[in-house]
Amino acid sequence: MKDSYMIANQTGRMLYQQVRSLPIIDYHCHLSPKEIYEDKPFTNVGQVMLGGDHYKWRVMRAAGIDESLITGSASWHDKFCAYAQALELAAGNPVAQWTRMELDAFFGITELLDRSSAERIWIACNEIIEKEQLSPRKVMKKLNVEYVATTDDPADTLEYHIALASDPNMATRVSPTFRPDAAMNLQAPGYREYITRLSAASGMEIQTVAQLKAALSARLDFFKAHGCRITDIGLEAFPDRIGTDEEAEAAFAAAIAGKPVDAAAFSAFLGNMYLFLGREYAVRDLVMQLHVATVRNANTKLLQELGPDVGGDTMGQINPKDMIRLLDAIELAGGLPKTILYAMNPALTALMSGIAGCFRNVIVGAAWWMLDHKRGIREVCATIAETGYIGSFLGMLTDSRSFFSYPRHDYFRRIFCELVGSWVEADEYSYELAQRLVSAVCYGNVKKTMLD
Amino acid sequence: MKDSYMIANQTGRMLYQQVRSLPIIDYHCHLSPKEIYEDKPFTNVGQVMLGGDHYKWRVMRAAGIDESLITGSASWHDKFCAYAQALELAAGNPVAQWTRMELDAFFGITELLDRSSAERIWIACNEIIEKEQLSPRKVMKKLNVEYVATTDDPADTLEYHIALASDPNMATRVSPTFRPDAAMNLQAPGYREYITRLSAASGMEIQTVAQLKAALSARLDFFKAHGCRITDIGLEAFPDRIGTDEEAEAAFAAAIAGKPVDAAAFSAFLGNMYLFLGREYAVRDLVMQLHVATVRNANTKLLQELGPDVGGDTMGQINPKDMIRLLDAIELAGGLPKTILYAMNPALTALMSGIAGCFRNVIVGAAWWMLDHKRGIREVCATIAETGYIGSFLGMLTDSRSFFSYPRHDYFRRIFCELVGSWVEADEYSYELAQRLVSAVCYGNVKKTMLD
Amino acid sequence: MKDSYMIANQTGRMLYQQVRSLPIIDYHCHLSPKEIYEDKPFTNVGQVMLGGDHYKWRVMRAAGIDESLITGSASWHDKFCAYAQALELAAGNPVAQWTRMELDAFFGITELLDRSSAERIWIACNEIIEKEQLSPRKVMKKLNVEYVATTDDPADTLEYHIALASDPNMATRVSPTFRPDAAMNLQAPGYREYITRLSAASGMEIQTVAQLKAALSARLDFFKAHGCRITDIGLEAFPDRIGTDEEAEAAFAAAIAGKPVDAAAFSAFLGNMYLFLGREYAVRDLVMQLHVATVRNANTKLLQELGPDVGGDTMGQINPKDMIRLLDAIELAGGLPKTILYAMNPALTALMSGIAGCFRNVIVGAAWWMLDHKRGIREVCATIAETGYIGSFLGMLTDSRSFFSYPRHDYFRRIFCELVGSWVEADEYSYELAQRLVSAVCYGNVKKTMLD
Repeated sequence: MKDSYMIANQTGRMLYQQVRSLPIIDYHCHLSPKEIYEDKPFTNVGQVMLGGDHYKWRVMRAAGIDESLITGSASWHDKFCAYAQALELAAGNPVAQWTRMELDAFFGITELLDRSSAERIWIACNEIIEKEQLSPRKVMKKLNVEYVATTDDPADTLEYHIALASDPNMATRVSPTFRPDAAMNLQAPGYREYITRLSAASGMEIQTVAQLKAALSARLDFFKAHGCRITDIGLEAFPDRIGTDEEAEAAFAAAIAGKPVDAAAFSAFLGNMYLFLGREYAVRDLVMQLHVATVRNANTKLLQELGPDVGGDTMGQINPKDMIRLLDAIELAGGLPKTILYAMNPALTALMSGIAGCFRNVIVGAAWWMLDHKRGIREVCATIAETGYIGSFLGMLTDSRSFFSYPRHDYFRRIFCELVGSWVEADEYSYELAQRLVSAVCYGNVKKTMLD
Repeated sequence: MKDSYMIANQTGRMLYQQVRSLPIIDYHCHLSPKEIYEDKPFTNVGQVMLGGDHYKWRVMRAAGIDESLITGSASWHDKFCAYAQALELAAGNPVAQWTRMELDAFFGITELLDRSSAERIWIACNEIIEKEQLSPRKVMKKLNVEYVATTDDPADTLEYHIALASDPNMATRVSPTFRPDAAMNLQAPGYREYITRLSAASGMEIQTVAQLKAALSARLDFFKAHGCRITDIGLEAFPDRIGTDEEAEAAFAAAIAGKPVDAAAFSAFLGNMYLFLGREYAVRDLVMQLHVATVRNANTKLLQELGPDVGGDTMGQINPKDMIRLLDAIELAGGLPKTILYAMNPALTALMSGIAGCFRNVIVGAAWWMLDHKRGIREVCATIAETGYIGSFLGMLTDSRSFFSYPRHDYFRRIFCELVGSWVEADEYSYELAQRLVSAVCYGNVKKTMLD
Repeated sequence: MKDSYMIANQTGRMLYQQVRSLPIIDYHCHLSPKEIYEDKPFTNVGQVMLGGDHYKWRVMRAAGIDESLITGSASWHDKFCAYAQALELAAGNPVAQWTRMELDAFFGITELLDRSSAERIWIACNEIIEKEQLSPRKVMKKLNVEYVATTDDPADTLEYHIALASDPNMATRVSPTFRPDAAMNLQAPGYREYITRLSAASGMEIQTVAQLKAALSARLDFFKAHGCRITDIGLEAFPDRIGTDEEAEAAFAAAIAGKPVDAAAFSAFLGNMYLFLGREYAVRDLVMQLHVATVRNANTKLLQELGPDVGGDTMGQINPKDMIRLLDAIELAGGLPKTILYAMNPALTALMSGIAGCFRNVIVGAAWWMLDHKRGIREVCATIAETGYIGSFLGMLTDSRSFFSYPRHDYFRRIFCELVGSWVEADEYSYELAQRLVSAVCYGNVKKTMLD
């Protein structure tokens, strides 16, 4: 993309020159380590651009595209053309800019994708995919990806992470993230089966919460031994109390026995577990990510027809006092790990930043999911600056299931440099410090956190 | 107004040229079909500009104007002069821009209204009103109003709609909107009397919810036969559960018996009814509007002295999960009608847009009521664009009780063209697509929805 | 500072010329009347700039500065240097601009404070402090402070206010604010001791709520006799009901007996008391300030180590219906006093403004605490303008514990003039009216409220 793309001020453009070529550290995503390991070449641009990308599916649905052309049985060619059509009136939606940056970054195509260009772009991209045998690792190399943290279940064997770590041809470091949602979600169908899996993976009996904790601790050690530096929790539910061990055991016992667990008991269990995990993370120097304020599977019919993660999730609420209670309890119990808060509701950004400022070690993370667009990124960064401290911000992550999403780091760098540039041009900040700030936020801070 | 008025960028001004003269489709308002039918000439500019307009009354109260000069016994002349005084320090309030656009559109007056000009403007306007015999229909014609959807009770005879439909001198199509709030509001005083009225209007006995539903269905058929394409609900309460038929019958029976109905029972009744109505709308291809997040009559003393709709309402809250529950239930029960969400709380715009994106057929509507100002309109449009799909947005409506409010469509068009123009100038969207987008949003989409 | 500092448009700069030298009326702050009376010279720039200023402490903590250099035993010199370091990457945080304005206003220093300049600035400032014997009163005189309202407990003797009132060398008028939080907070440790103090101060027995009310009324008369024009309430809790006298007595009796008072009983007591106080204020023509939506002492460990007011507070929530209930009840009981609402949560600004518009006499106050930064001030002012009436806005206050905070009035004036200037340049407001508006908001309105 042009140097000036999305950067309205001259100072921002100068700052951007300094960060545009920095390596990418994508410290939170949902890429498949298996796919990275196997490194199979992509088959066509439709598959790689639209496969699994529910951001784009939502735009297509809103544009009235038939479901067969979104998640259905239509060919990738027809889906790609349908997406091109949806883009035409999708002004202001980030997928429009992402698509443009993807076409430019991977194929050198600067033409806008719409119905009139779709066929031409389809052919041109596929020629390059074929010729270059474009694959996950080649994409990573092209975009200078230094580090990726995938998202992994405690019961996972990490076999692909282990294989990748010893692969001499692997330039990008790929580390696991410990995400124990399945171990927490005792209201979910299949919870008992999950516990059986976790028991097998840890080689430990799990009949009680005490045993569950022991198994998770063992898996944490295992994850850490294989390069894990960061953890995550993204359940829809967030605890509104810190349950006692007795309450947690009672809820767990009921779930294992196949009995119903009501919201209060579930919350008590969650609070007890989150407190435990927070301390486990702290003693191992692991980062704790908390992703909150979502509603999952709002459209039951869509869930029944297509399953989860297809575009049926949305923004939710969280009572800030619940977040405070948890952080306060971990701090009192011995101290917080480095903690990153993400809330998918723009009205919560300032609240999360205010909470973060009450604790050392707690920061607000990147504009998440439905906040991840130009104004949303600006808003999150400005709010952190105003009510917290932008100097310790960790910058961008993709949170993506698509190998084509790395240009979003460039997207962020442009937006952030424009913001900082606007401060300099308004005489509210010096250019020399701005140079330090953009380097720290776009690379230095996360490098120190994840790789030092 | 000047072509550049409220449009800061050149591209926005060019886009505006394309939409400024398009006809107006005002698909949600509170105009009186009787007044349109009778078409009595206005008597003076005070009456037509201030009569019933609680937006302006609030500004006057905040400016310290005595109530006699707002809703009291003072002459229209004195009220007009008092309003002119209030405007002087009402910078940033939309009524200031609306007033300016009204004076320009109907009287060709470009001078600003303040104390020094009030007398002069009063005389000039009244001369034109007298000379032109300015009346509701003349106002509609002057502003090129193609279609108006009024807001009507299910018990209404629609006699004026029927008369208007057969009036060969009527250029504007005037259709009813089915708004069954009174039939839902079983905690309201006079509910039993209302049910008697509805029974009479439908010619059906109403002793049970089943009978109430049958009566409403019959009225829906009647409304549809007389041009109704759209419905509305605007109760302050929003259901936090979907009651069973038994729960709904119990709540209704209590209300009819004059017994108290508590909040939970009311909510169960509402949820049951809203689910029923949603499906009734869907099978008749009627649009469902949901206006949520208000607090009505916050100031009891004002209500006691002046009644409702005098400026005592304000923004409220809604739990997004309640909205999700209702939409999900209708979708599961057979499918949603085309649905438009409006929430009068700026913190809810993104939440409503996120919810809309989980369902086909659901969109977010225009910046409503206290959000209907320059930044508010920009914010709603940008949020829809970022988190949804601006290409299917239905554009402006007045929601007004005043015949002088049509210039607000011009107000919207200017603001929207400026926004889209800013995207084009930032190289985030193409001019050619922008031309299509502004036409669709300012006219084409609503034309297709209401008139095709 | 330069005339153009923080004012991007030419019209704003012209408007600013008109208000920049107006006297300062700081109608809400936490300065010590004792310190004003004693007027001891400051010892060094570290103490005066950092002492008690938890805004700056939070930035230092977020920057990773050791606590010994924030609130600990390190020397003021070392703390000042540590603060200089923290500022380097604190772009966008208001303390960066405040610090710059403080250095300019009190020492004529325009160099930016960072590690490289810290030593030089430390020496230069301390030379001036020493040479000028800079003290509280000299600071007030330098910044043209006409009026200060401190924050005072009903049990306070007001001895320093009384002494200051008769001091012929005192140019600034210093008046007390009646803030009865301690008399309300019956869940707080030490409540009984407080009631004993209040009993002694009023010379009245306090065994019941009726007696508590009588004592508070007597203290209100005493405060008013000593210049009090304004009151404040800033408890974290906000009543969700208006308790009867019986409920209030029961809660109070329990508290006095050392028994626990649950949330519902506390809320009933608070509602009863707030209603009583609202009327007491109204009959005495005293302004009522309500500061809501905070969470106090979120970090218990920090509270245990350092006490309250050290940077462990954050933004909270309030149900708008609770605010409506209270205001409505006072209005019904005989009429509201002039009331100012402040909510420390950006999502509540529009809600508070909507509520204010339902009542005469109620306005929204300045951007408070964590909203007190450039965008926050703009946002509060614009929201009031759009949804209320900017012409009656009372402008800036510092809410500060630091004598060095007066430059924040200049900070506000620049931001407000830029905002109004932008309206004029967009042809949405006239320059002549803008001149009146900025004078009214920056000085005239509050002068009329506090000093006429």
